[in-house]
Amino acid sequence: MHLIMEKKETVAIIGGGLSGSLLACCLAKRGFKVSLYERRGDFRETGYLGGRSINLALSERGINALKKVNLADSVLDDAIAMNGRVMHSVAGELSYQPYGKAGQYINSVSRSGLNLKLIELADEFENVTLYFNYKCIDADLKNNTAIFETAEGEKVSVKADIMLGTDGAFSAIRSEMQHTERFNFSQQYENYGYKELEIVPGPDNKFMLEEHALHIWPRGEFMMIALPNPGGNFTCTLFMPYTGVNGLDKLKTEDDVKVFFNKYFADALPLMPGYIHDFFNNPTGSLLTVRCSPWVRGRFALVGDAAHAVVPFYGQGMNCSFEDVAVLDELIDKHYPDWDKVLSEYQDARIDNANAIADLALKNFVEMRDLVGHKDFLEFKHIEHDLCDLYPDKFKSQYELTTFTNMPYRYAWNQGFKNEQLIKAIISEGLKEKLEDRELMNKMFEKYL
Amino acid sequence: MHLIMEKKETVAIIGGGLSGSLLACCLAKRGFKVSLYERRGDFRETGYLGGRSINLALSERGINALKKVNLADSVLDDAIAMNGRVMHSVAGELSYQPYGKAGQYINSVSRSGLNLKLIELADEFENVTLYFNYKCIDADLKNNTAIFETAEGEKVSVKADIMLGTDGAFSAIRSEMQHTERFNFSQQYENYGYKELEIVPGPDNKFMLEEHALHIWPRGEFMMIALPNPGGNFTCTLFMPYTGVNGLDKLKTEDDVKVFFNKYFADALPLMPGYIHDFFNNPTGSLLTVRCSPWVRGRFALVGDAAHAVVPFYGQGMNCSFEDVAVLDELIDKHYPDWDKVLSEYQDARIDNANAIADLALKNFVEMRDLVGHKDFLEFKHIEHDLCDLYPDKFKSQYELTTFTNMPYRYAWNQGFKNEQLIKAIISEGLKEKLEDRELMNKMFEKYL
Repeated sequence: MHLIMEKKETVAIIGGGLSGSLLACCLAKRGFKVSLYERRGDFRETGYLGGRSINLALSERGINALKKVNLADSVLDDAIAMNGRVMHSVAGELSYQPYGKAGQYINSVSRSGLNLKLIELADEFENVTLYFNYKCIDADLKNNTAIFETAEGEKVSVKADIMLGTDGAFSAIRSEMQHTERFNFSQQYENYGYKELEIVPGPDNKFMLEEHALHIWPRGEFMMIALPNPGGNFTCTLFMPYTGVNGLDKLKTEDDVKVFFNKYFADALPLMPGYIHDFFNNPTGSLLTVRCSPWVRGRFALVGDAAHAVVPFYGQGMNCSFEDVAVLDELIDKHYPDWDKVLSEYQDARIDNANAIADLALKNFVEMRDLVGHKDFLEFKHIEHDLCDLYPDKFKSQYELTTFTNMPYRYAWNQGFKNEQLIKAIISEGLKEKLEDRELMNKMFEKYL
Repeated sequence: MHLIMEKKETVAIIGGGLSGSLLACCLAKRGFKVSLYERRGDFRETGYLGGRSINLALSERGINALKKVNLADSVLDDAIAMNGRVMHSVAGELSYQPYGKAGQYINSVSRSGLNLKLIELADEFENVTLYFNYKCIDADLKNNTAIFETAEGEKVSVKADIMLGTDGAFSAIRSEMQHTERFNFSQQYENYGYKELEIVPGPDNKFMLEEHALHIWPRGEFMMIALPNPGGNFTCTLFMPYTGVNGLDKLKTEDDVKVFFNKYFADALPLMPGYIHDFFNNPTGSLLTVRCSPWVRGRFALVGDAAHAVVPFYGQGMNCSFEDVAVLDELIDKHYPDWDKVLSEYQDARIDNANAIADLALKNFVEMRDLVGHKDFLEFKHIEHDLCDLYPDKFKSQYELTTFTNMPYRYAWNQGFKNEQLIKAIISEGLKEKLEDRELMNKMFEKYL
């Protein structure tokens, strides 16, 4: 049982997914009276339903936020480190590209396991009350009130001093905000769907592909990826356009799917005994980007996917959401009890960065499904990697800034373009054998970075 | 009374503004049984309420659509031709830029007068039924049903074979679509508000500024414009950022407003006796761009502002909406009774063009409030104008394509950028005295257009 410092404002958190449950812990630690309302049943009893992908890549920003509630170590204990990408060519040849320097890796974690840990921790605070089967159906933004429908069909009105919408990409709270004055909003779907499939473990739960890597089968217009799970299996995700030459609409029969997988994923196929069943029985996921502004109306604020759903290709959706929580927590520390200041600085600090990671994630889709399959690109990445290694204080890659630091996403976005100009110049000026010439490189850095 | 050809499908039109009432006339002419539902009361009795600006600029696309119901001549009879822009400098100096060649002009028309004419015409068809005070509050997209609330608070469910949402920028039908699978949507507000003001007529309803022009007071970050009305007055609109050095928030007292107008609009001020009253009593308008895709779900389709609200700076909002109606009408002519084809070709033909005019309108805001006040820009426009005159078959300006033709907006957008490269080259290569050299110019056209 954690210590409650004093009786402060009441906070209602709408949505008990990853952001909501972490937020509940952070605010409870600060002594607020927290009520958390979750649409689904209690996953501790019913098992975990819904949510998007099965596993997620936890990195620095997420870890940094989990440290605030002392949960980072326990989560990382159950994670699998992924040091880089292994690309599988059509012919089954492998190539490798490390994510960063030695010791820099991302962590494959289970969405359900992590959510469970966070809910369990929240429940340990006596100043947190959890409400399951509470579906938010309406909100009165001017009166700090949200309306829920319970499993029994009862309507319950909830009022708190601070109302935080962590209700995900299809947020009911954001829907209400959308009808307020001058609310900017966009929801944009990619013309791609995805199917989750599985690579099974070998005998004794042996990993049948390199364990400490994210695997990619880049095929230009489409791709499959695989992330390792502690059970020895890999969660595979196949991303394809809905329609067209390589469209999901072309895979109508079992034969269509067999021919397609044999042609493009021959090396993985023997490891995927259930792929046909999974292909036809798993739902087709969609890829959504949500942007909005403002994130705050009165005493309501959006946090996590409710404010900024991003496509999964940078592995930053959860990390960005957790960073929202960390920033909000730090601003409470700084400005409490001035909630106007807390909330307005929160959105000022986050909106542009959320737009930046949304753009980075869209850009990375092209990189993953297409570019990583090209020699030129791997050469580019090789130079980038060497520069990171040789000049750790002066040169950081966009991936490093995004994944292994807490620098603003917008900075990573901008710096990435500068890096690109630098590396293009190194190649075009024939300097790629001279990366160790510090004097020369320092001049290049001055010119381009 | 117009002739009814035969009994065909029922069509419900949700929204009786400009697009809805024109659409009702077009479809009635084709013999459909049309019901039109309007949120407001019958403007023929109550006077005209709501809607955005008081007057609008009717041009080729709108005229072309009005011809389909033989209303173009009568509307143009009540319009005032505007041949170009008159720019007013801070010192009160005037400069002039024609919109096109001789005989090309845009038409200042009254929104209420035009809507009235369209509703009156619709009412003449015995196969049109008008319902006023019917506010759409919900829709069942799968069952061709819309739910309305009447003035008495009664709820009425309406089902028709074809359901057309012409319910404007805040469309209830589009709101329903937003919650369907993979619906792309964005609403984006500019950081600018506007106030409508008035320049009054002189004795005997004399126009106190040049009658056949759109007047602009370009001030860089902000601007005022004025459009002539048949009564001899001008409707002025002041566009300013909400906040900042030149923000609306700086004009708090009558003195603030007086000082501001004296400084920036001194030549207009004596003609605007009510400006202080109007400034403080008229609502502050906002500037919204709405984009979405698809526009069709089942037998529901969006038409006009419901599908594509644009900012007013190209004078194309109504013209684009009327073009939707014309295109839909032509596709019915072509494919009826294959409604799947009609509706899918309708959205394929319109969505990208609506995005293009949305972008053109945003671009034109910068041109109007800032660029037209600069000599360089006017020189650029001068060369463009001469090229239009000298080479009418080979060179058309972006403005001409947008305003005086029915070519796709996207084509105008693309062509505008090519024109820009051409004219920049003419200037940088010192050819602006050689525009009449046909051989030389033909080479330039080949290179740039």
